[in-house]
This record gives sequence, structure tokens and C-alpha cells, in this order.
Amino acid sequence: MTKSKSVYLDYAAATPLDERVFAVMRPYLTERFYNPAAIYQAAAMSRAAWNGALARLAAVIGAKESQLILTAGATESINLAIWGVASRIPTAKVAVLATDHQAALRAAARHPHTIIPVGPGGVASADTVAARLDDDTALVSVDLINSELGTIQPVRQIAAAVGAVRKDRLARGVSLPLWLHCDASQAAGLHDLHLSRLGVDLLSLNAGKCYGPKSTGLLWRRDGVELAPLIVGGGQQFGLRSGTQDVARAVGFAKALELAEEARPAETRRLAALRDRLQRRITDSLKGAIVNGDQKNRCASFLHMSFIGADGERLVYALDGSGVMAATGAACSANRGNRSHVLEAIGLAAEAADGSLRFSLGRQNDQASIDFAADQVIKAVNRELGL
Amino acid sequence: MTKSKSVYLDYAAATPLDERVFAVMRPYLTERFYNPAAIYQAAAMSRAAWNGALARLAAVIGAKESQLILTAGATESINLAIWGVASRIPTAKVAVLATDHQAALRAAARHPHTIIPVGPGGVASADTVAARLDDDTALVSVDLINSELGTIQPVRQIAAAVGAVRKDRLARGVSLPLWLHCDASQAAGLHDLHLSRLGVDLLSLNAGKCYGPKSTGLLWRRDGVELAPLIVGGGQQFGLRSGTQDVARAVGFAKALELAEEARPAETRRLAALRDRLQRRITDSLKGAIVNGDQKNRCASFLHMSFIGADGERLVYALDGSGVMAATGAACSANRGNRSHVLEAIGLAAEAADGSLRFSLGRQNDQASIDFAADQVIKAVNRELGL
Repeated sequence: MTKSKSVYLDYAAATPLDERVFAVMRPYLTERFYNPAAIYQAAAMSRAAWNGALARLAAVIGAKESQLILTAGATESINLAIWGVASRIPTAKVAVLATDHQAALRAAARHPHTIIPVGPGGVASADTVAARLDDDTALVSVDLINSELGTIQPVRQIAAAVGAVRKDRLARGVSLPLWLHCDASQAAGLHDLHLSRLGVDLLSLNAGKCYGPKSTGLLWRRDGVELAPLIVGGGQQFGLRSGTQDVARAVGFAKALELAEEARPAETRRLAALRDRLQRRITDSLKGAIVNGDQKNRCASFLHMSFIGADGERLVYALDGSGVMAATGAACSANRGNRSHVLEAIGLAAEAADGSLRFSLGRQNDQASIDFAADQVIKAVNRELGL
Repeated sequence: MTKSKSVYLDYAAATPLDERVFAVMRPYLTERFYNPAAIYQAAAMSRAAWNGALARLAAVIGAKESQLILTAGATESINLAIWGVASRIPTAKVAVLATDHQAALRAAARHPHTIIPVGPGGVASADTVAARLDDDTALVSVDLINSELGTIQPVRQIAAAVGAVRKDRLARGVSLPLWLHCDASQAAGLHDLHLSRLGVDLLSLNAGKCYGPKSTGLLWRRDGVELAPLIVGGGQQFGLRSGTQDVARAVGFAKALELAEEARPAETRRLAALRDRLQRRITDSLKGAIVNGDQKNRCASFLHMSFIGADGERLVYALDGSGVMAATGAACSANRGNRSHVLEAIGLAAEAADGSLRFSLGRQNDQASIDFAADQVIKAVNRELGL
């Protein structure tokens, strides 16, 4: 197996930094190191670069610069959204989808909360979401693209349903605000992020999943959404996220998001075709293979499959040995040997969950690498099942 | 004024990234981008690099790798220390020095808390600290080097005094633990950080102040110190700080801390001599100049001065115009036009506080640049005072 044969199919766990992103970050990693809070000219240039980057991030999603908070990643953004809204009112309830990322589930678990079930394909129904809200609910959090299955949630419909609940509450004199947070960590470059179309009140994004710098995220909140800070101190970022501003990460994130959005129409078509090809080749050869998650509402880059009787972890090792990098589930939890909460939430049988793989495609994949990967998957599963 | 004449004297606000640090980070910023939580070989190498970096960070301060949590900066570390200890026990009290960083003061303000006064030189007395603790106090937080004045706190003596209080409490059957956190954000490369000599229970460090990567910090906690996480999610870092691990930052921080520690003996002597020279030249020429803060217990790189009748902010602008970059106080708050809480805490008169400058020296400074800077300061103050 030569090095060049290595095929990376775990873009949902980490994306390589785009060279063009690295190029714009580099001056701020080196000579332009000044603290944007200082008042001499060199620092004012850092501040201008920071502000410019935030304005560009805002432009991509149809927001205003003053509505963005740069964080150390989507996990922090999600924590800030949930803690920020819910900790202000001790009795306030948070509602999350059963398939949401652990960051949302665990952040919600710090407050009174409701777990909203999803359908067997992993798709949430707007009606079910609305039905699970009561007059104590202050925040609903839903992901846009599920990080394990790639399921696209009907966020716009959920926003409309939440809006109707809000209207009804107002009419009945219930004064508690009700906000909708969307975790779009996996969505940059793969789904429309324009806020006017999503209709949400808060949005979390992750630079490390769209060829941008790692440990970099943002939280957008609509004007009027009042937040408590998670990290306090020097008062940077409107007092909502203290800590010296890292200009390199802001500039890199802006470039990465712009590039991802620009490439999106063509890239999602290309990835969907490659993903469908991978799926078809595998299911054609392995008659017992199951595709998990709703296939109509599925992000272009995701393919989640079960091979009953096989062990997902052993399959990942076998594939790695033949040059294919894939995951058993979401890199941040499912690889730890616990059964995935997402697969449990969609009611997948334990034997199907245990024999599952997540493939997530990205920029470096092409038809040849997908064909190679499909062959390796077929071989590995057959070996594992003793066929 | 040619570009080469520019003298940076604001190292306490931001340090440039060491080229050797950038070199070790670079592969992890580019080709080695894998998520350390994944299980294929390339990811295992990322994980090994992460673990190796944490082991090296631990070695510098005399700790174990399992006792470190990597954060997005000292502000987060301080928040995690204070929130982590105090939020576990709702009635627990936090004690902080009046001159501590805003991160400590504001994090303490979320809990029942006590503000401990310092002497007119900014030095805390171990006896005063001990006297201000009561049986509800669960955490004391002190800085090692004050970020405005450069005052070195007698952390070892404070640790001994806190230890005596702890012993007394145990003898009286008081079961609430009492921990000492030290904010050493400004101390790497400038003060001994060995934990056996500091005697503290928790320690915060900042890579962005010691020629390492920005928005990178760590929190060390002694075995037995139980913490609640600030950011929850995928469960990385013992569940105490969720979010995808950023290997580049870990590797860079380790290199930066090793280099800083290695250079420390020679560099602190060199900086103290340069700082004393700067101070002497200014005080020789400007008879009304006042040096703020205890001069015996002062970090080698700091010089904080007042020029009564002058305006600190206007002085910074004037100096910037002649090629010298300095600060009016801590970059993260005092530059915003509010009066510094540190200068208030040491009882500095308003007119002295308003006419104050902070010079903080670092690696690129040499005798010629210091002489040049001294001349510019003298000129600027004379102009400002109409002399």
C-alpha cells in the first residue's frame, strides 16, 4: 500500500486547513501579533483586521458584525448559547433534540430540560418540537446537520413552529422569551446558512469543520437575545466572551467560510455524486448493508452504514490498514466504545449500531479514491463476516 | 522616523510568536490535521503529539500530564479554576486579591466572595490573606505577577498561610476543602513556576504571553482538587473541557514554555538591567516621575510610572508617533478609558493614575532601543507638561 493510496473519509471529524486560509492567517501568527485592545497604531491595525474579519463572517450568513461572538469552537458556542440564555432565568427550560451533539445535550442537562424525540430516519418534526415546548421553555436547540448521520433537520419549519408557539404565548400574556438556537457546526460549505432563510435566533458555527483554523467557532445571536457570559474577565466582545482576541483565527475563519460558501453549489453536487457512488458500490456488493438515517434529508458528504455481525471499530482498523480512514461514529464520543446516543435515538438495533461506519467526504476525494475506498470496505466487511 | 526605530514595550499585552514555536506548530496546522479522538493511525499520531506536548508542559512545572487541562487562554483557565471549584458548593466563598486580573475578580463575583486588600506597593501579605478566610471559603486566588505593576506576590508564603488555615479547619472538623489558585499568566519565562516551590493547588498559565500561540492557556490542578467543567460536550480532557483538541496549540505551547524556562535565568537578569536603565534615565531627567508598585518585589520586565499632570492615553499616542509602543495599563481593560482597578487598590491618587504608563520589556529589546525609548518618553512628557 503506497502512501498516495490513502483516502481520508472523516471530514466530519476534522478538515485540513485550506492553504489560502493559512496564507491569510500567517502574518497574524507572526509579525502582526499585537493585542487588538492596545491603542498604538500597530494594535489598531490588528483591531481593524479583527473587525474586518467579523464583518466578513457576518456578511456570509446575512448578519451584523455586532451580533457575532468568536469562540474557541462550536462546543463553546453551543455552551454559550444554552448557558447564556438559560442561566439568566433559573427556572427556564431548555429543549434539545435527542440526536443533538453531546455539547447541546450536556449543556441542556445543567438546566431543567426536555429531550425531543426524532423519527426513525433521524429527522425531527416541527410539530413534535412545538408540542414539546411549554410556557417555561426559554430555548430550543436543534442541529442543522447531524454530526453522525448527516441528517438535515427542517430548521426553517421548526423556526416557523417555534414562532407560532411564541405568538400564542404572547397572546396569553406569557412573558418568558422563547429562542431557537441552531448548531450548524457541520453545515458550513454544505448547507445554506443565510439567517433570513433559517429563521433562527442563535447560530453556532465551527471553523475546524470547513477547512478553517481549529478551536475556532462563532455564536451569532439576533438583536434582543440577552445572554449571560460563560467566560468573564477583561470584557472583550461586548463582555460576552472575555479573553485576548486572536486575530489570526478570526481572519482565517472569515476566509474559510467565504471559500466554503463560494464553493458550495458545485461542491455539494460533486460530493453527493461521489457519496451516492460509494453507497451504491457498497450496497451492490454487500447485500446485508444498511444505510442509516433519512436518505432524502441528508447532507451531501455523509454516508452512515451498518454491517450486521461486524464490529465497527475492527472495521475502522482494517480499513486503516488498507489506506482508508473512516469513523465508527462522531469522533468526539462514539469512538470511545460507548454506543452512540444518535443511533439509540433513531432506534437502531444494537447489532446494527455496533457494526456501523460513518464516511464523511470532502475536498480531496475524487472518483478514483471513492472507488478504491468502496473496494476496501467490501473486502474488510467480507473478511470480518468470514465471507 | 524609520521603521527600524520602532521599539515595542508592551510584551505584557502580547508577545510575538517565537519562530521555533511556529516551526513545531506548522505541521499540525497543515498536513497533520487529524482529530486526536479518531482511531486510525494518523489520528493516533495526533493523539501521541497531544499527549507528548502535555507531558512536556507538565515537566516544566513539575506536574503530571493527567493534571493539566488545555484551554483557550488564561482567562478561561482562571474562570475554570474559580467556577470549577466554587460552583460545586453553592455557599462556597471565593477570596481574591483586589489587584487580581479582571478574569479572577469577575469570576469570583459570580459566587459569595471576599476581596483581599494589598499594601500600597501592591504586595499582598500572607497574614492578611489568612485573616480574610473564613470557614466558608473554598478557594483563594492570587496572581503571581501583577499584569499592570509587575508586582510579585509572595505566593509561597501565602500557600503556607493557607495551609495553616486548612490544618486549623481540619482540626476543628470543618470539612469544606480550601484550595489556592495562582494566576501565573504573566510569569512564564520570568518567574520560577515549579509547583513544589510555589505550593499552590491550581495554576493558570498563558501561552500568548511567553512567545507561544495566542488563545492558548492551561490549568493545572493538584490530584484531589475536584472541578466542575465550564464547557461540556464530547467529554475530552477528562470531561473537564470538552471540544476537539487542537494539537498545534498544545505542541506550540510546550515548545514556548520550554524555551522560556530555559532562557529564564539569563533573560530575567538582562531584562532587569534594561528595565533599571530605562527607569534611571527617565527619573534622572524627569524629577516629578513616580515609579509605582513595590520595587523590590517586581518582575524584571515591568516598569510602571506616573507623570502627574500628564494624560496617559495622550502619552501613549505621542510615544507611538515617535516609534515607541507602550500601554496605559493592562491592555484588556485599562486602555478603555476606565481607571485601573489595580491603581485604585494600591491607593494611587487619581492624577497619578491618569498620568501613568506601563512599560513591559521582552526579547527584542536591547540597550540601544531602551535608550531611544527613554529619550522619547522624556520628550513626550516634557511636551505634554509644556516644559
